[in-house]
Amino acid sequence: MCELLGMSANVPTDICFSFTGLVQRGGATGPHKDGWGIVFYEQGGVREFKDYLPSSESAIAGFLRDYPIKSRIVVSHIRQANVGRIGLENTHPFQRELWGRPWTYAHNGQLDNAGRLECDRFQPVGTTDSERAFCWLLSEMQRHFDDAPSQQAWANFVCERCVELNRMGVFNLLLSDGDALLTFCSTKLAWITRRAPFGTAHLSDEDMSVDFSAVTTEKDIVTVIATRPLTDNETWHIMQPGECRLFVDGESPWVRQTPAVVHKSTD
Amino acid sequence: MCELLGMSANVPTDICFSFTGLVQRGGATGPHKDGWGIVFYEQGGVREFKDYLPSSESAIAGFLRDYPIKSRIVVSHIRQANVGRIGLENTHPFQRELWGRPWTYAHNGQLDNAGRLECDRFQPVGTTDSERAFCWLLSEMQRHFDDAPSQQAWANFVCERCVELNRMGVFNLLLSDGDALLTFCSTKLAWITRRAPFGTAHLSDEDMSVDFSAVTTEKDIVTVIATRPLTDNETWHIMQPGECRLFVDGESPWVRQTPAVVHKSTD
Repeated sequence: MCELLGMSANVPTDICFSFTGLVQRGGATGPHKDGWGIVFYEQGGVREFKDYLPSSESAIAGFLRDYPIKSRIVVSHIRQANVGRIGLENTHPFQRELWGRPWTYAHNGQLDNAGRLECDRFQPVGTTDSERAFCWLLSEMQRHFDDAPSQQAWANFVCERCVELNRMGVFNLLLSDGDALLTFCSTKLAWITRRAPFGTAHLSDEDMSVDFSAVTTEKDIVTVIATRPLTDNETWHIMQPGECRLFVDGESPWVRQTPAVVHKSTD
Repeated sequence: MCELLGMSANVPTDICFSFTGLVQRGGATGPHKDGWGIVFYEQGGVREFKDYLPSSESAIAGFLRDYPIKSRIVVSHIRQANVGRIGLENTHPFQRELWGRPWTYAHNGQLDNAGRLECDRFQPVGTTDSERAFCWLLSEMQRHFDDAPSQQAWANFVCERCVELNRMGVFNLLLSDGDALLTFCSTKLAWITRRAPFGTAHLSDEDMSVDFSAVTTEKDIVTVIATRPLTDNETWHIMQPGECRLFVDGESPWVRQTPAVVHKSTD
């Protein structure tokens, strides 16, 4: 299907190490070769990089592996197409502005009958069920809230809508407004928080290690979220089906367990 | 102030040559060192690259100079900040979705009292007068048209709104919905259309030439729009103050002259 990668940190942190592991799964160690994208929130702004080429072969991905962009929130995705042709308009993450905030969304899974999701204010540009679900989530938020809600209010609201989407198919989610990163686990999502004392991590998908104690300070808190653990010498938290978890500044201040849904296929 | 660069072509064409000239003006041959951005429309999709670093020093701009992305419409901007801090949220081009289309906008100039422009559906993320004018233009379109209008209908509508903005200050514009590129000249904008028989062009800002006959076919039509001509051995069309011109597939099927406004400063 696809793979997700997210980061939440309390200080601007680069994601080169994790991204290096992820891009290998885009055509080299994994089949997710139908494009990739990454969004970095930096201070008040945001920028994204996208390609329809496999991440393991993309020159832009190659550039980013070696170019440390320091960010507090990252949302990334490598795609194995099911609905929608291979092309930039169908490449995650997707972005829209709501209440003057740049929202970013990436989805792993597949939804049945996504066409019935009513999008008014936000319309898909491409043809994926994923982007339609994003437009629906934002349209729902905009219909429900008159003004920008509190973090916990929108997290709770989106969590309830995720329950509906989860009934329509596999719906693993990363969603951010630039301040918080919301995750929803339909079938597969894992996370790890790194903080002092930092150790050395080794990638599963490439023979590469990093000694985080050499590149961090004692106060740094960095959480990485991924479809499958990216390292093979650390213990990741495996999220439960139906689990919705919010990350802010590397910490997880809010979690809610919703009913698990059994899906036929998760890959 | 800033400099604009746009392209409209009837076949996917790379803009490496013109971009190479433009980025030199971002800190080397020109003072526009407060960030830069470029948006490429490719088939049904779009991607953008942005940096808050001077384009002449930016590693990402350096990468793009040598990485030919083939596109039919390009919108680019290098910034010399006046309103709004240096940061990604204030870096052009700006993008929003309307009617399922990804609109891209870049502005050269400065508007007085932009705060009075009423934005409802689209809200600025950053603090520039430019982004506010963009949000206003789209909000106006959305208020006026029930559904996606024809190309000429939206061009005409936006042209009339540009007249209002032009009274508020310098407003040189590039705006695209992915099919057409609309330009409005408040003070400074120039364009050139290259078609067979193609010749050799030489950049003004760097000692670099390209023989277009070696990289094109006889059917190619490529128009480049820039704040100031980018080459020193070709004849560019200098737009008149108040001139609004639409480009589609490299051709200019629509132009309208609106009243010129005398502005105190144009640089």
